[in-house]
Amino acid sequence: MRLFNKVAIVGVGLIGGSLALAIKKKRLAVEIVGVSRHKNTLALAKKSGAIDQGSQDLSIIKDADLVILATPVKTILDLARPILKFIRPDSIVCDVGSTKEEIVSKLSNIFPGFVGSHPLAGSEKRGVSNASSGIFKNSLCILTPTDKTDPKALAKIEKLWHQLGVKVLFLNPDIHDKALSLVSHLPHALAFSLAGIIPPKYSKLGANSLKDTTRIAVSDSQLWADIFLSNRKNILESIRLFAKNLSKMQSAIHKKDRKVLIKILEDAKAKRELLG
Amino acid sequence: MRLFNKVAIVGVGLIGGSLALAIKKKRLAVEIVGVSRHKNTLALAKKSGAIDQGSQDLSIIKDADLVILATPVKTILDLARPILKFIRPDSIVCDVGSTKEEIVSKLSNIFPGFVGSHPLAGSEKRGVSNASSGIFKNSLCILTPTDKTDPKALAKIEKLWHQLGVKVLFLNPDIHDKALSLVSHLPHALAFSLAGIIPPKYSKLGANSLKDTTRIAVSDSQLWADIFLSNRKNILESIRLFAKNLSKMQSAIHKKDRKVLIKILEDAKAKRELLG
Repeated sequence: MRLFNKVAIVGVGLIGGSLALAIKKKRLAVEIVGVSRHKNTLALAKKSGAIDQGSQDLSIIKDADLVILATPVKTILDLARPILKFIRPDSIVCDVGSTKEEIVSKLSNIFPGFVGSHPLAGSEKRGVSNASSGIFKNSLCILTPTDKTDPKALAKIEKLWHQLGVKVLFLNPDIHDKALSLVSHLPHALAFSLAGIIPPKYSKLGANSLKDTTRIAVSDSQLWADIFLSNRKNILESIRLFAKNLSKMQSAIHKKDRKVLIKILEDAKAKRELLG
Repeated sequence: MRLFNKVAIVGVGLIGGSLALAIKKKRLAVEIVGVSRHKNTLALAKKSGAIDQGSQDLSIIKDADLVILATPVKTILDLARPILKFIRPDSIVCDVGSTKEEIVSKLSNIFPGFVGSHPLAGSEKRGVSNASSGIFKNSLCILTPTDKTDPKALAKIEKLWHQLGVKVLFLNPDIHDKALSLVSHLPHALAFSLAGIIPPKYSKLGANSLKDTTRIAVSDSQLWADIFLSNRKNILESIRLFAKNLSKMQSAIHKKDRKVLIKILEDAKAKRELLG
């Protein structure tokens, strides 16, 4: 079912490229164009069939009825103004950024058809070479409408994700950022902090527990620095909460209080089991 | 190649059961007997072919030329004395405990043929029903001999692990406990502390990053409480080191110092890449 004539994807990386491939696969658009700073990325995206045309110049997005901003958070914020002159007033603009408060607040003032969204897909891998229409399988996309959001644009974006087989959840931008700071940004902060203190001489002793808990520490540094800074208030609060809980465990170990320690571990286990 | 006549495995769980299956598969023993507190476990272990005979009574280990203590750390310490009366002076005794200083110090005073060992295999799963000879594939086993260790017993245990296709590494018990507190016990402490603060209402938002970093938080609470308490000094020091590194990141986010933040993330990434 065709939903759009021309879709423009700005930032043809892991998420942008995968989204293009998924839209192609389901034939939801007549044409997909891509924008990237790198010629190489555009060539790869075209070769893989993700996009029909690519350019390093933003003007290629002209007349798109859907523009998807799929760059890192900071670039989404920086590109909003430059993009404005190429699009029609009735164009739908959405993003896939990991933080929402800052982006939604700025972009809904610039684009009448803006819908904030955050697909919970992706991994520590990067780039269009890792893109695949399958990464959204069984995944969740959070949409963050506000009272400024055009209901028609919102309905169309919801339909897009449904067509891609993705479950859609609505959250206020501030609730999104608070929740994500706990369930995604904090795990990244901890993985980076843990990986950073493992002396190279112990690397060969790294069992599966260490590998799994630090897998995401190879994620892109600039991307994550900007997520932490864009969601600064919430991530600092989440780190504080975590440190408080860790210090409870620390104190139980220090006091050799086996009973309290087991209670802490049992509680954690019960909460982990809810994640499936 | 037959290495032992009678092997006794005390604690036929994930590791004990897998070890029995692997020894059977390679035909390294004439007979394997198992001890468990639970009849059910013994029946399962016998049915799966891991053991030839099982009993809830320690006397079944009589005349074993190899006794493997594969229970949780605390039970290894508690069972040492009761086991002594059933074994010959020339029997080899080894354990598979996750901490070594306390165990090696106590057991090498009790058994002339004691060899401390720690196979870095296993997972958050438990029980003989999850046992498989394959869990040692490409794994590492740390042996922790001291100047009290009988060289012949040590050579035979080293040969056993080699025959099972496992790489063997020698470490002093204190170095083992220090290293493992960083590469295994700390990741568990962090996973428990993180899982413990995720509000159930956010469970459905748990992306792969949260799932991976907390997978081990469903590990057995009693087992892990005892590992933390047995390696108390080192795990407290490792938590301190981690908290110090986390507070560096916290401070960079607080000060909006993107440059320092990126440096911290880059350093973590480089160290994570060494883990493979």
